Amino acid sequence: MSNYIVLGGDGFCGWPTSLHLASLGNNVLIIDNLVRRSIAEQISAPSLTPIRSIDKRIKAAQKIGNISFVNCDIAKQSGRLKEILASFKPDAIVHFAEQRSAPYSMLGDVERKYTVDNNVGGTNNLFSTLVELKMRPHIVHLGTMGVYGYDDAFGEIPEGYLDVTIKQTNRDVSIGYPVNPGSIYHMTKCLDHTLMQFYAKNWEFQITDLHQGIVWGTDTDITKTDEDLINRFDYDGEYGTVLNRMLSQAQIGHPLTVYGTGGQARAFIHISDTARNVALACENPPNVGERVQVFNQVSEVHKVRDLAKLIQEKTGVEINYQDNPRKEAKENELKVSNEGLRSLGFEPITLADNLMEEIEATVVKYKDRLDKTVIDSNARW
Amino acid sequence: MSNYIVLGGDGFCGWPTSLHLASLGNNVLIIDNLVRRSIAEQISAPSLTPIRSIDKRIKAAQKIGNISFVNCDIAKQSGRLKEILASFKPDAIVHFAEQRSAPYSMLGDVERKYTVDNNVGGTNNLFSTLVELKMRPHIVHLGTMGVYGYDDAFGEIPEGYLDVTIKQTNRDVSIGYPVNPGSIYHMTKCLDHTLMQFYAKNWEFQITDLHQGIVWGTDTDITKTDEDLINRFDYDGEYGTVLNRMLSQAQIGHPLTVYGTGGQARAFIHISDTARNVALACENPPNVGERVQVFNQVSEVHKVRDLAKLIQEKTGVEINYQDNPRKEAKENELKVSNEGLRSLGFEPITLADNLMEEIEATVVKYKDRLDKTVIDSNARW
Repeated sequence: MSNYIVLGGDGFCGWPTSLHLASLGNNVLIIDNLVRRSIAEQISAPSLTPIRSIDKRIKAAQKIGNISFVNCDIAKQSGRLKEILASFKPDAIVHFAEQRSAPYSMLGDVERKYTVDNNVGGTNNLFSTLVELKMRPHIVHLGTMGVYGYDDAFGEIPEGYLDVTIKQTNRDVSIGYPVNPGSIYHMTKCLDHTLMQFYAKNWEFQITDLHQGIVWGTDTDITKTDEDLINRFDYDGEYGTVLNRMLSQAQIGHPLTVYGTGGQARAFIHISDTARNVALACENPPNVGERVQVFNQVSEVHKVRDLAKLIQEKTGVEINYQDNPRKEAKENELKVSNEGLRSLGFEPITLADNLMEEIEATVVKYKDRLDKTVIDSNARW
Repeated sequence: MSNYIVLGGDGFCGWPTSLHLASLGNNVLIIDNLVRRSIAEQISAPSLTPIRSIDKRIKAAQKIGNISFVNCDIAKQSGRLKEILASFKPDAIVHFAEQRSAPYSMLGDVERKYTVDNNVGGTNNLFSTLVELKMRPHIVHLGTMGVYGYDDAFGEIPEGYLDVTIKQTNRDVSIGYPVNPGSIYHMTKCLDHTLMQFYAKNWEFQITDLHQGIVWGTDTDITKTDEDLINRFDYDGEYGTVLNRMLSQAQIGHPLTVYGTGGQARAFIHISDTARNVALACENPPNVGERVQVFNQVSEVHKVRDLAKLIQEKTGVEINYQDNPRKEAKENELKVSNEGLRSLGFEPITLADNLMEEIEATVVKYKDRLDKTVIDSNARW
C-alpha cells in the first residue's frame, strides 16, 4: 500500500484515476480546489452527467477504498499545501491540477493569464514546497501530445527525447524533443516540462511526464458501480473532447462539428486506460538522477473526419465542416510510440472495442440536461 | 523618433538603457514597480551608489531627452498595464522587468515562487494584453546566456538555434537550442523563450531575445554627467555580479570570493554595451511571421579565476577559494557567437579597455556605504 496524492482529483481524468488507485489498495488523498466546477458554472456548461458534490463522492468512494479529500489551491495556497504534504507523506503525487482546455485558454486575456498562472505557478509551487520539506515523492505529471506539435516534423514521435547529430561537432546526442505547442494550454505543458527537468536535475526528483492523447469515454468499471461515483461528461465547445462532443451532437441530431477538412490526425485514449496507466506510471519511477521519464499515454491515432464519418454511419447525422477557428495544419499524419507504457503492461482499449455505445447510452440517459447553446466553441486562435 | 517602453527601467540595466534610448531622440516611458529597491531593503543590501528616488531621476533625465515614468506591476496589474499600453502606443517594448538574480531565486520557496510568478507571469501578461489591444510593437526581451547551460555540449554556442540531423529521418533541421538552465532564475528565461515562440507563431509578434552575458561596470557616458542620474551598483552575494563584486571586495581588502576552482568560463559585457545593443536590437526587428530572433549579447569570455587573478595582481588582495554552493561544472570552456549584434555595428568594450579603474573609483568614492556583512551569498543550490 502506498500513499498517493491526486492533485485535481475531482476532475474528468482525476476522479476515475483516484478511484482506480484506491481500488488497488492505496491510501489516496485528493487535493482539489473544485475550480473545474466553478468554470463550468461560469461558462454555463455543467457536466452532462449529474456529478455529485465532492462530499457525496468521497462518501461513496470510501466503499471502494481508502480515499479522502482536502480543498486547496496549489497555485495560491502555498502554506496550506505545505501542511498537507508534510502530514500525508506521499509516495507519489499525480498532478492533474491544471486548466486543461485548449479553447478555454484561447478565449481572452483573463483565460490566458489564468491558464499560465495556475498551471505553471501551481507546478512550480508543488516542487518548490517539496524542496522546502526535503520530500521526494515520485511526481507523475499529466502532459499532452500537443507539446510535440502536429507538423510531422521528425518522423514517428518518440517518448520525449529525440536522437540527433549536431552538425557543428558531428556528435550524436539525445535531446529533449523540440516543442511546438498549438495553444496557450499546450504551451503551459511545455513550460511545465522544462521546469520539471530543472527540478529533476538540481534536486534529484524522480518525475514522469505522461504526454496524453485526447481522452474519450466517461465511465470506468468503478464509476459504473454507483450513481454517486459518476464521472463528469463535457460536451461543450470548450471542454468537450472531440469524440465525446460528436457523440453528444449525434444524439440530438445536431450536425457533427468538424473544423476545416477534418484532416487533423490526433491520438486518442479511453478514460479507463488513463486511470490504469497513471497507476502503472506511479509504480515505475525513473531512477534518481535521471532526466524526466516520458511516456506517450496514447492508444491509437485517427483523423477527426474519420471519427465523424464513423459516427455519421452509425447515426445518419450530417457532418458540418466549419472554418477552422484554430491555427493548425489542415492535414497531418501522426505516428507515435507508446512503447514505454506497453512495456509495463498497457493493453489499449480502442474504438473497435464498442465502448462508443456506452457513451451513447450515457448521452441518451441524460439527454434532457443537454443544452444545445453550449455546443459551439467561442475561442478563436 | 520612436515610442519606446522600458519595462524595469529603474533597474541596473534598465536605467542606463532608458537614458541611452532617450538620448537618441526617442520618446521613452519607463514602467517599473520599483521592486528592485524593495528587495534591496528586504535583504539589507542597498546599492553602493546613492541612487536617487525615481522622481529625482526622471527630473534629471528630462535634460537628456523625452522620458517619463509610471509605476505598474506588469505581472499583477493587468488592467493598469492595458491602459498604459493603449495610451502610449509603443513602437517597441524593452522587457527588463524580471527578477534577475540566480542566487536570490535559489534562496527558498518564497523566492522561487516570486521569481517564477513574476517573470513568467509578467511576460505572459505583457503579450496577452497586447493581443487584446491588437497591438504588435517589437518586443525586445532580456534573456541570459545561462539558458544554454555551461556544459560545452555542442561546440560554439550559436544564436538561439542549432543545426542538427534527425537520426530517424535523416533530415537536416534548425531547432531551438536545447536549454539547460542552472537556476530557477535561468529556468524562467527558458520558459519565457518558449512562451514567446508561441506568441510569435500564433499572433505574429516580432520578438528579439537577447541572451546576455554577465554585466559589469556601472557608469555610462550619460549616467556620469549628473549625480542624479547615477546608476545602481550591487556588490552583495545575491545581486552583485561577479566582477563588480570582486572589485568591491578588493577595495576593502576582503579576500576575493571564488566558488570551487574558479574554472567556470562565463561571458561578460559592459553596461554601456548593454544599453547600446538594446537600442540596436530595437531598431532591427525580425520580419513578421519569423520565429524569435536571438542575439547573444556578449563581448568576451573569461574564467572566474582569471578575473580574480587579474584583480589580485592589481591590488594584492588574496583569493578565497570556497566550496561551491552551486551545482555547476567545475571547469568548462565557452565559445559563443555574437555575430548578430556585430553585424549591426556592435564593437565590444573589453576588460582591456581599462574601465575597471572606473569601477574602482566608484567603490572608493562610496566606500563608507559598503557593508561587509552582505558580501557572502546565502543561497545554496
